[in-house]
Amino acid sequence: MSVVVSLNQGSGKRASLDKVNALVAADLGRVNQLILKRMDSNVALIPQLAGHIIAAGGKRLRPTLTLASARLSGYKGERHIALAACVEFIHTATLLHDDVVDESDLRRGMATANNVWGNQASVLVGDFLFARAFQLMVEDGSLEVLDILSSASAQIAEGEVAQLTTANNTETSESAYLEVIRGKTATLFAAACRVGSVVAGRPQAQEEALDNYGLNLGIAFQLVDDVLDYSASQAKLGKAIGDDFREGKITLPIILAYRRGDDKERAFLRRTMEDMEQNEDDLGRAIELLGKLGTLADTIERARHYGAIARDALGIFPESETKSALIDVVDFAIERAY
Amino acid sequence: MSVVVSLNQGSGKRASLDKVNALVAADLGRVNQLILKRMDSNVALIPQLAGHIIAAGGKRLRPTLTLASARLSGYKGERHIALAACVEFIHTATLLHDDVVDESDLRRGMATANNVWGNQASVLVGDFLFARAFQLMVEDGSLEVLDILSSASAQIAEGEVAQLTTANNTETSESAYLEVIRGKTATLFAAACRVGSVVAGRPQAQEEALDNYGLNLGIAFQLVDDVLDYSASQAKLGKAIGDDFREGKITLPIILAYRRGDDKERAFLRRTMEDMEQNEDDLGRAIELLGKLGTLADTIERARHYGAIARDALGIFPESETKSALIDVVDFAIERAY
Repeated sequence: MSVVVSLNQGSGKRASLDKVNALVAADLGRVNQLILKRMDSNVALIPQLAGHIIAAGGKRLRPTLTLASARLSGYKGERHIALAACVEFIHTATLLHDDVVDESDLRRGMATANNVWGNQASVLVGDFLFARAFQLMVEDGSLEVLDILSSASAQIAEGEVAQLTTANNTETSESAYLEVIRGKTATLFAAACRVGSVVAGRPQAQEEALDNYGLNLGIAFQLVDDVLDYSASQAKLGKAIGDDFREGKITLPIILAYRRGDDKERAFLRRTMEDMEQNEDDLGRAIELLGKLGTLADTIERARHYGAIARDALGIFPESETKSALIDVVDFAIERAY
Repeated sequence: MSVVVSLNQGSGKRASLDKVNALVAADLGRVNQLILKRMDSNVALIPQLAGHIIAAGGKRLRPTLTLASARLSGYKGERHIALAACVEFIHTATLLHDDVVDESDLRRGMATANNVWGNQASVLVGDFLFARAFQLMVEDGSLEVLDILSSASAQIAEGEVAQLTTANNTETSESAYLEVIRGKTATLFAAACRVGSVVAGRPQAQEEALDNYGLNLGIAFQLVDDVLDYSASQAKLGKAIGDDFREGKITLPIILAYRRGDDKERAFLRRTMEDMEQNEDDLGRAIELLGKLGTLADTIERARHYGAIARDALGIFPESETKSALIDVVDFAIERAY
């Protein structure tokens, strides 16, 4: 787990988001301005709360994907700005609701909105941002875009509900888990990319290629996130780990461990993640177990598989700076694990 | 408060929803079928939970308004069925989220979804129904309808957030409160009616008339709901009362009482509704106070005012069975108070 493997063989450097960020920087600045403008409301609590989570920032990965996909598709217009803002509003709405559902106190090292303003405001401001996203799409005027993002929104909710029903169930299958993350994470990545192609009016094959790129990138991204939550190296960097464990959230490293473990190890997983009886040193014990059974490394292997599909999906596009930047995103998504 | 006043002077009978229900019965049957079909999902918890709240029924007042408005507009097509289902999905999504926000255990005498399945599932299934509503609108294909209902959805959320910020604040003004109920209740009534006119392609003036009818009906409806929550006669009927009081929800009867009361009475309202220090007999004392200060009766007077505007808004339509049925809805909304 501590070996640094460079996937970015051409350069020999570690992959990063630098290239894609530089390419879309000007556009993303305009997206951020639009976000600030359109999250406003006469009800002061709305921009306060929305500003808290949106300013907290994160990587703005999803709107970046929309902007870069539009660029890859040769788009020269303006519509991608508003649609990237839509994608971020939908993402932010789901984050607000997720934090309520998970009863989280921290996100990206900052107090969550539900922690500061309560669950009630987080639910309602999430609803507001979701509605505002649809208003932006209506202004854009494309039923195709509305179709893509309303379907994605329904699938996200389905994925989240499916995740609730797998919570605390150590017998969840790998394929059931994949359905969950396809819904809760990958679908919005796919939609974010597809929309960039749609505004450019590209042929169906290119639209699908970008959708597939986003979908598989999203799956890889989520699998690596699942690994990082048990990562000793993250802990060394001072990042919070163990959230999934403490919530009894069944992710792929646990699913594989339950299948590979002996009776005693399964009993441990059932006690801690099903019965939610956890002692102070159980997280450490879990990390040790996942290491011993190789399930963190193998979850990364699974992520690599989806990453490879994402890269190949871009094969139909001619080489370009943007294409290379989008491939960097895949490499970054996976190399984060090391 | 116990005098029965008939507003339905022509007939001398109490107003009811019977006429409007009979007119739309066949259409509403189709709406219900479509609702059942489109709330389905591979994730079994979604139709279970959605079915619980949708089957609990209520009056289906909002989709009924869409169907009756389409009928009043001479519409002969099919689109009103799906759009009435949309309106009900949006309403149901807000109910699910409201119950989480209000921490309610009962709705219409039944256990709330959050009570049975937890807040988490209620938040997420609400999100699903909201997304599904937009999918139905996209299938319908009218950007005008999408505009009306996405704007209404944003305003509903704004109204709900505004309500949070007035909670426990006895100094809330009547006009601030009206803004709250305009957003949280009346906007969806207005949109439900307007959509019925839009599908029929009626002139702007008729569209606006139905919007105004719905908006003012919605305000009247909410004001009477606020009164019923303190109604001794409701209590006699075995209906739950006092929810608003126990939550410290500041409604018009309380707002008026705070303005009219003496120092001792204001102190009582501050203790019970701001500081949330409530004894067992405080609800009874509050009901007595509102009665003494005449604020329940005057809230009904305010509701009558909005009801009158709603009725007059329909003035531009020629007399018809449907128009008379829509006027009955206004009378019913107000007569419920007695």
